[in-house]
Amino acid sequence: MTLKNRIFIVLLLFIPVSIAADLLEWGPLPLFATSALAIVPLAAWMGTATEEIAVVIGPSAGGLLNATFGNATELIIAFIALQAGLVEVVKASITGSILGNLLLVMGLSMLLGGLRFKEQTFQPVVARVNASSMNLAVIAILLPTAIKFSAEGIESQVLQNLSIAVAIVLIGVYGLTLLFSMKTHTYLFDVGVAGMESEEEPHEEGSGNLRLWIGVLLAATLAVAVESEFLVGSLEAATEQLGLTPLFTGVILLPIIGNAAEHATAVTVAMKDKMDLSVSVAVGSSMQIALFVAPALVLAGWVIGQPMDLDFNPFELVAVAVSVLIANSISSDGQSNWLEGTLLLATYAVLGLAFYFHPLT
Amino acid sequence: MTLKNRIFIVLLLFIPVSIAADLLEWGPLPLFATSALAIVPLAAWMGTATEEIAVVIGPSAGGLLNATFGNATELIIAFIALQAGLVEVVKASITGSILGNLLLVMGLSMLLGGLRFKEQTFQPVVARVNASSMNLAVIAILLPTAIKFSAEGIESQVLQNLSIAVAIVLIGVYGLTLLFSMKTHTYLFDVGVAGMESEEEPHEEGSGNLRLWIGVLLAATLAVAVESEFLVGSLEAATEQLGLTPLFTGVILLPIIGNAAEHATAVTVAMKDKMDLSVSVAVGSSMQIALFVAPALVLAGWVIGQPMDLDFNPFELVAVAVSVLIANSISSDGQSNWLEGTLLLATYAVLGLAFYFHPLT
Amino acid sequence: MTLKNRIFIVLLLFIPVSIAADLLEWGPLPLFATSALAIVPLAAWMGTATEEIAVVIGPSAGGLLNATFGNATELIIAFIALQAGLVEVVKASITGSILGNLLLVMGLSMLLGGLRFKEQTFQPVVARVNASSMNLAVIAILLPTAIKFSAEGIESQVLQNLSIAVAIVLIGVYGLTLLFSMKTHTYLFDVGVAGMESEEEPHEEGSGNLRLWIGVLLAATLAVAVESEFLVGSLEAATEQLGLTPLFTGVILLPIIGNAAEHATAVTVAMKDKMDLSVSVAVGSSMQIALFVAPALVLAGWVIGQPMDLDFNPFELVAVAVSVLIANSISSDGQSNWLEGTLLLATYAVLGLAFYFHPLT
Repeated sequence: MTLKNRIFIVLLLFIPVSIAADLLEWGPLPLFATSALAIVPLAAWMGTATEEIAVVIGPSAGGLLNATFGNATELIIAFIALQAGLVEVVKASITGSILGNLLLVMGLSMLLGGLRFKEQTFQPVVARVNASSMNLAVIAILLPTAIKFSAEGIESQVLQNLSIAVAIVLIGVYGLTLLFSMKTHTYLFDVGVAGMESEEEPHEEGSGNLRLWIGVLLAATLAVAVESEFLVGSLEAATEQLGLTPLFTGVILLPIIGNAAEHATAVTVAMKDKMDLSVSVAVGSSMQIALFVAPALVLAGWVIGQPMDLDFNPFELVAVAVSVLIANSISSDGQSNWLEGTLLLATYAVLGLAFYFHPLT
Repeated sequence: MTLKNRIFIVLLLFIPVSIAADLLEWGPLPLFATSALAIVPLAAWMGTATEEIAVVIGPSAGGLLNATFGNATELIIAFIALQAGLVEVVKASITGSILGNLLLVMGLSMLLGGLRFKEQTFQPVVARVNASSMNLAVIAILLPTAIKFSAEGIESQVLQNLSIAVAIVLIGVYGLTLLFSMKTHTYLFDVGVAGMESEEEPHEEGSGNLRLWIGVLLAATLAVAVESEFLVGSLEAATEQLGLTPLFTGVILLPIIGNAAEHATAVTVAMKDKMDLSVSVAVGSSMQIALFVAPALVLAGWVIGQPMDLDFNPFELVAVAVSVLIANSISSDGQSNWLEGTLLLATYAVLGLAFYFHPLT
Repeated sequence: MTLKNRIFIVLLLFIPVSIAADLLEWGPLPLFATSALAIVPLAAWMGTATEEIAVVIGPSAGGLLNATFGNATELIIAFIALQAGLVEVVKASITGSILGNLLLVMGLSMLLGGLRFKEQTFQPVVARVNASSMNLAVIAILLPTAIKFSAEGIESQVLQNLSIAVAIVLIGVYGLTLLFSMKTHTYLFDVGVAGMESEEEPHEEGSGNLRLWIGVLLAATLAVAVESEFLVGSLEAATEQLGLTPLFTGVILLPIIGNAAEHATAVTVAMKDKMDLSVSVAVGSSMQIALFVAPALVLAGWVIGQPMDLDFNPFELVAVAVSVLIANSISSDGQSNWLEGTLLLATYAVLGLAFYFHPLT
């Protein structure tokens, strides 16, 4: 059993602890901290279960499952926050997930991989297709904000309608990128599910385990939902106690909690010189957030009557745009070294400082 | 005779119909629709005549003719709108021509070409030279707007003077790009006039036809001017009846009318796997709009006393900037596939939605 | 002796003339002009002395010396202006140095080199590493301005704190880029000090000259400091007499004075088809300004009690961002021709016009 898995098992202990924190009313800060720590291993188990099921049910259906459940943790946390009316926190966590994947995860991967290997290479074609998709996503979230600024007094209903229309286009494009990578141009992406698989310990054959893994997936999903309720419920009071703004919490803290397992995978494989897989995890995940999770939340908000539009805080917009810009610029040549990783991390640090100092409450 | 040409001949019937609509006062909407439909085949005939003349008078003078008359239809429509004082519509149609060429035409070409051929390639060098020229153009139209925003209370005369100075620089650069592509670095552009030519039916040799084609060119130009008068005269009333803003009309409708013939060419050659020519038509046309048509209109407006500056609506600016960004990102590697075409079309759709919802009147 | 060196010797005569202008109170304009002309050869001597010392003390220490003193002239002028409280002029000169290196120097090099050689090539890897560093720098100076705009009523102390934190990150990154280019990945940069060296006349061997060159360096540095006092002291009155704004002076005039010697080197080597060195001088110098000189001035201002934040005028920000964008787009393919040089120069011209017309005082 790897070190990573041992840590995850220890972290599972925080599930009962967080339940105790809730029942015994230990206060918001302990509840926030323990539920956050409990989510990390649950997210990892959800990921493992999804991949095991994907192997059994075959590449097409499995790929689709992976593509839908890949960011399930973020989706659950965000949905519960949306239900609680924390629309700004939801937007901030979308921003932060994109930043985290493109800058923190890819940066750490390139830095730690680059300390071992002088130069690492990966398929630039995949990076470029993803880069163009990310550009589209940035444009999509830029437009409602740009409209709001260039047309004073615009009704929020108009922004809402535009956001729904744009969300439908984005989900459609996401579906087409799946078709592209799984059906028509699979040869470009031959590092995907299979590569991810071979990273894990060899798994037993046969569909006898299918029921087991479906059970694990359901249990982990339910547990994530419960812990997310704790997390969201204690979020505002806890971060206030810590002297942090909701913006900082949403952009920096939440995404680290939701993505910890993926981060570990991306960095681990980078240190084994499998940069194709590492870049694919980081960029693919941020693309999934932008083209699927964010629009899905817009549509969900519309359905449950908690309207969420794509009109992001201009500062978040700037942060996403510059992250996509620098990540594209660094990944487009299909080569990486430790300095490129450092530049991504420095960008993350600079953005983190800016969000820390940003007075928006 | 190709299907395309048959459609164009049928559309010529709208010339007498639009004249009837004007004389018999059928109202703005029929006049707008019929004159729009009449312009499509006229633009195609202007294009054919220009190319035929270009073949006879040789590559240098012919290339220059093509470069000047390539967007003659847009120039005529815009000039007549400028004379009528519709400065905002003119700016919107410049924006829309750039968007239409980079996103709609290139997107459709890459999508339809990509459905036939798994991967299509083209000279990335040409795409890159064009990309840098488009960047310059975006910068040029960005600056007056940026000045206006960063210096409150600036006199419009100063913006006008700056716009004229910038327009002169842009036209100079346009002249130099012609020198580059036709004199000093022709080998990079060996897909230009000749490639375009070979697409058409074999044309008769000899300069006997020169007079004929000059006649056709003059007749078509005059007819376009007449129809543009109808179009511009009925524009405001007709679009109001349709519930569209002048902004949407200028950005989306007018450019489709003016560019329909070019669109058809670019898509047709893409489906024959001649992506070099297809990309060259789309990107070259948007470059011509930005470096020649727009500055020419600024200078023309100055001469005829209808001052037009380069201070675009910030939302149009954002739209042009993101279009150039994503088109450059997709075309810079010299490869295309159906997904890249789809991403361009999705960007066009998202921008179109935004212009549709934009409340600017 | 080369023509360049003869011109520099003649220009040294302006040192006594400027002193006379100061003592005899000839007025601000003569003082400004003569001190400006005196700085040009002094900057060149500082550069030569730095390189000679670098050769003697070996590549590592020498590279570090070069990296620190490479933009010493700009640093001295800016520091003296900062002491005098001309914070806006300092920021403008940082903007202008970046613009000047990326657009004017690289543009002239590519244009004049391209007139001699049809196509010139250089290592795209170096250009890309620099491009990503410049992107980081643009992000770093963009954030304080973006915060200011998105959070109304933010206290200037917060911006100051953020600027100091960001400055420390940038200087750290600068140190790491030196480590990268001088220690871990030297083979990518084998055109640096050595290439620069071989451009000069053969220099005498032995460390006997070390003292001489240290003396030259100290004397030139002192003289630059004196002349900078004259320059800064007369700047406001002189430019007002010329009808120029402090913004235009800072962005266009000061950087040309401080960088004249480097400009000459970059252009000279480009005409000898050593584009690797030429691009490296231009892009490296702008990177040094952004990652070292600007943050050093923020920290220096904090120490001497003349607080300077990184909150640039939005128009300067736009200018830097678009310069980096177009320079990256042109240099990323490792090829250049005269048209690409022209495009950079046209961008410089357009920006220069905008700064000329910008009414900011």
